[in-house]
Amino acid sequence: MRKRKFWGWGYADELLSNEEEQQIDSRIAKTFDLEEIEKLPIPKVEDIDLPQPNIEIPTALKALLSDEKEERLNHTYGKSFPDTARSLLKDFSSPPDLVAFPNTEEELINVMDWCDGVNVAVIPYGGGSSVCGGVESQVGDSYSGVISLDLRNLNKIIEIDRESRSARIQAGILGPNLEANLKKENLTMRHYPQSFEFSTLGGWIATRSGGHYATLYTHIDDFVESTRMVTPSGVLESRRLPGSGAGPSPDRLTIGSEGILGVITEASMRLQDRPTFRASSSVEFSNYKDALNALRVISQSGLFPANCRLLDSNEAVMNGAGDGSKHLLILAFESADHDKTASLKRALEICSDNKGLYEEPNNNKENAHRTGSSGNWRSSFIKAPYFRESFTRRGIIQDTFETSITWERANDFIEEIKDDIAKAIEEISGKPSLVTCRITHSYPDGLAPYFTFSAFARPSTMIDVWREIKLITNEICISKGGTVTHHHAVGRDHRPNGYDEQRPELFKDILTAAKAKVDPNGIMNPGVLIDPENKEIKNWLK
Amino acid sequence: MRKRKFWGWGYADELLSNEEEQQIDSRIAKTFDLEEIEKLPIPKVEDIDLPQPNIEIPTALKALLSDEKEERLNHTYGKSFPDTARSLLKDFSSPPDLVAFPNTEEELINVMDWCDGVNVAVIPYGGGSSVCGGVESQVGDSYSGVISLDLRNLNKIIEIDRESRSARIQAGILGPNLEANLKKENLTMRHYPQSFEFSTLGGWIATRSGGHYATLYTHIDDFVESTRMVTPSGVLESRRLPGSGAGPSPDRLTIGSEGILGVITEASMRLQDRPTFRASSSVEFSNYKDALNALRVISQSGLFPANCRLLDSNEAVMNGAGDGSKHLLILAFESADHDKTASLKRALEICSDNKGLYEEPNNNKENAHRTGSSGNWRSSFIKAPYFRESFTRRGIIQDTFETSITWERANDFIEEIKDDIAKAIEEISGKPSLVTCRITHSYPDGLAPYFTFSAFARPSTMIDVWREIKLITNEICISKGGTVTHHHAVGRDHRPNGYDEQRPELFKDILTAAKAKVDPNGIMNPGVLIDPENKEIKNWLK
Repeated sequence: MRKRKFWGWGYADELLSNEEEQQIDSRIAKTFDLEEIEKLPIPKVEDIDLPQPNIEIPTALKALLSDEKEERLNHTYGKSFPDTARSLLKDFSSPPDLVAFPNTEEELINVMDWCDGVNVAVIPYGGGSSVCGGVESQVGDSYSGVISLDLRNLNKIIEIDRESRSARIQAGILGPNLEANLKKENLTMRHYPQSFEFSTLGGWIATRSGGHYATLYTHIDDFVESTRMVTPSGVLESRRLPGSGAGPSPDRLTIGSEGILGVITEASMRLQDRPTFRASSSVEFSNYKDALNALRVISQSGLFPANCRLLDSNEAVMNGAGDGSKHLLILAFESADHDKTASLKRALEICSDNKGLYEEPNNNKENAHRTGSSGNWRSSFIKAPYFRESFTRRGIIQDTFETSITWERANDFIEEIKDDIAKAIEEISGKPSLVTCRITHSYPDGLAPYFTFSAFARPSTMIDVWREIKLITNEICISKGGTVTHHHAVGRDHRPNGYDEQRPELFKDILTAAKAKVDPNGIMNPGVLIDPENKEIKNWLK
Repeated sequence: MRKRKFWGWGYADELLSNEEEQQIDSRIAKTFDLEEIEKLPIPKVEDIDLPQPNIEIPTALKALLSDEKEERLNHTYGKSFPDTARSLLKDFSSPPDLVAFPNTEEELINVMDWCDGVNVAVIPYGGGSSVCGGVESQVGDSYSGVISLDLRNLNKIIEIDRESRSARIQAGILGPNLEANLKKENLTMRHYPQSFEFSTLGGWIATRSGGHYATLYTHIDDFVESTRMVTPSGVLESRRLPGSGAGPSPDRLTIGSEGILGVITEASMRLQDRPTFRASSSVEFSNYKDALNALRVISQSGLFPANCRLLDSNEAVMNGAGDGSKHLLILAFESADHDKTASLKRALEICSDNKGLYEEPNNNKENAHRTGSSGNWRSSFIKAPYFRESFTRRGIIQDTFETSITWERANDFIEEIKDDIAKAIEEISGKPSLVTCRITHSYPDGLAPYFTFSAFARPSTMIDVWREIKLITNEICISKGGTVTHHHAVGRDHRPNGYDEQRPELFKDILTAAKAKVDPNGIMNPGVLIDPENKEIKNWLK
């Protein structure tokens, strides 16, 4: 198995080139008017001081549990800014005591039973790509220990039903492995979150992941046909059905439960035929309100573009498109059944009606969506996490937050958030910041804006600066009527000033009661979403 | 207010013509080889013996509660076969003691607070169109009384957001009133269950209603933007958002909760522009497997027809189409934005590939969907409940049940159910029965078959015969892998042999825990979905 970085995103041997590193240096120097840039070295396993495990591996589970140092390092954090920052600063003060690698559901149950019996907290771990503290092992001192439960060996496609276009799949499968196996049957799940390379089916379901596609079927919620979740009180498995009206949907409680009720081990997922017809284009707008209006009308038209993403002028530049004066709408249609030229034409007509200017469309070309402005956008999308961690080495915060809002508030919401956050960052960090926005998902009744910002800090101050900003971004999304997260999940980092305010109080009570029922000892991912009853969790963000 | 029947469907002055009644007589005589047909008279209010209320109206709630005989009769039953049967037989042995008509949410809360304080069960009542025992007041003897909580006065559209195409609406609004008011803004919710005339927004949400449209947005679940529910422990209101990934969806627990957690008082609903482009056709198939295959390919094509309903050959005849040798696929496309001719053409091409024969399409004609075979189908759809109750007067059971299944099982599932139920009915009733099937909803991964059957009985035996059949239809849907209900809800009637087996056991525990939290005294719609803890409910079907 190719080795992954314990301190950041991706594989250990996958680093930016010297040239790319130099580009980052000069960009930072220019942006923040700096003469010298401090840069943290890439840490080595042997440099890290790791506390001894608080618990010993029981003999019966010897084959499934590891206390190996590098595994414990690998499983200490997710991949958020502060995760990489703490890793680079060699702060691994709250690692899991042990890491479990069950090979079957039965083994997984054995591990969980043991944990439940000896008051050991369990942190479900899929690809470890959480950017909101969803896989951390900081659980407070009311547990005798904590394990990270890694699902990497539950990674098979159990069964494909070609006729219904669905498959029963183990939760630990990574995106590329899943798609490679579906491709053999000319099928695809067509769910591409930015974390695709290092995230798992189970993780997507547990966190209500949002895919790369911008309209219609994009949230993992819509792809789930049935789920199977192991809880400390037994297995909760739903029936495989295309649709049902029999009571509240059990799946919809599993989806988004972020490991606090149990571990998702399998799901039946809806698949699609691989698209063969494509049509795409990019449209430039001088005025952001016009662009938003075009996006709204397209989203309400029933045309359902696969890609329909609006980059504001600053994002467009960063993605190698335009001179910073134009906002860029990327449009792409796909189908496995019929030509989409007419749909693209109609969408472009809507853009025209709203003063959009566009290139001649690339119809039906295989890979059309990988060329031109949309192609540029696509490769920066995949590369972004690699770049981000190089900024972190220099103390520079590059981070994102995402939310959603209904159309009637959209323009003001986006403008106000950009302004308010830019001001807040300048106040906190002492240097100006650029906050940019892309609309990643569009709905008939609203949209999901995704904000990117950079903020000046030094390696020694970056975590404190980040923490202050985070509390403000949480607060601003909620106070302005949005959601604290559209597809990154809640984890621990989105709770203070955020999810804890957003979630209806009675729903918290219901979730707490549900958890008390299936996880009576409160061992499952404590501190995520809610606090287990009678166990106070200290959130590190607070 | 126009008076509604207390004993059956629709308005008191809306009865079949003498000619239609005679047609029913001769059809029954022919079908069941009868010489004489016994026929129950339409009951009058004064004919009914009603038990005295067990509770008195408290002075403070005098303006909101009624003990009037006709209101208590009106609220004793829903509109299922046994509901009408018991009404015609003048069996109103378990009426609500009182009926509440709050005019505001505050008044509704006052009523519920009083009930909670004096151990009175609360049966939320929207349009009263339940066909599964969802609004009955038979709650067992552990309550001091029972009220029916009628939401008819909470029937306003509070606010329309034209830009986001959504509206905040009170839950007690009936379908026609809702659509008439939306029409003024050139909007529609485009949700047309068969009960449309006499069912409410709140009822649709509480029961996961399925609309008349056959693909894509059809279940009420998809139209809900946010909900507001009054529980005995307070109000649970979700945030109005186009999409969110912040923990499990609170709305998805409210949706389908069938009144056991609280009363839905308001919801923000997604709306649509009124369609202006239409294209429709009907396709005949000699072979059912071919028809199913065409339906599957269309459902997986991304064309998303608004209507895509497959009537088996017997249903086609009953709906005035064909000679009984052909299965009929009704296809219709609609859009408010763009022409759908090409979509219809492609769908018909798929039908052709599967040996379907079709008329020349009616493109773009306003009301095209109201003419031809599809037009016939539409009027019988609306008239069906009126006819059914005239059969009931003669002891003849005309009933339906609906389920769903994935494509790979579809053909065998449908054939087996038709055969098995026909055999069971013959065994139970002593006379042969015809079981017919239409596919009402199609999904990329499966479909929802809707079965209609008639069974011979006499007025004196009809309830017992129906009960035996019901237990078998529940059981067969579940044992063959389907759902016990696709869009009629669970209520009380779908529990034995059905929902109680289908629902994951741990999910029952979770629902029970949730209910215990928000409804600690178990007053809300006891016996529906689950039994409140410590209160044993005797289901009349058992």
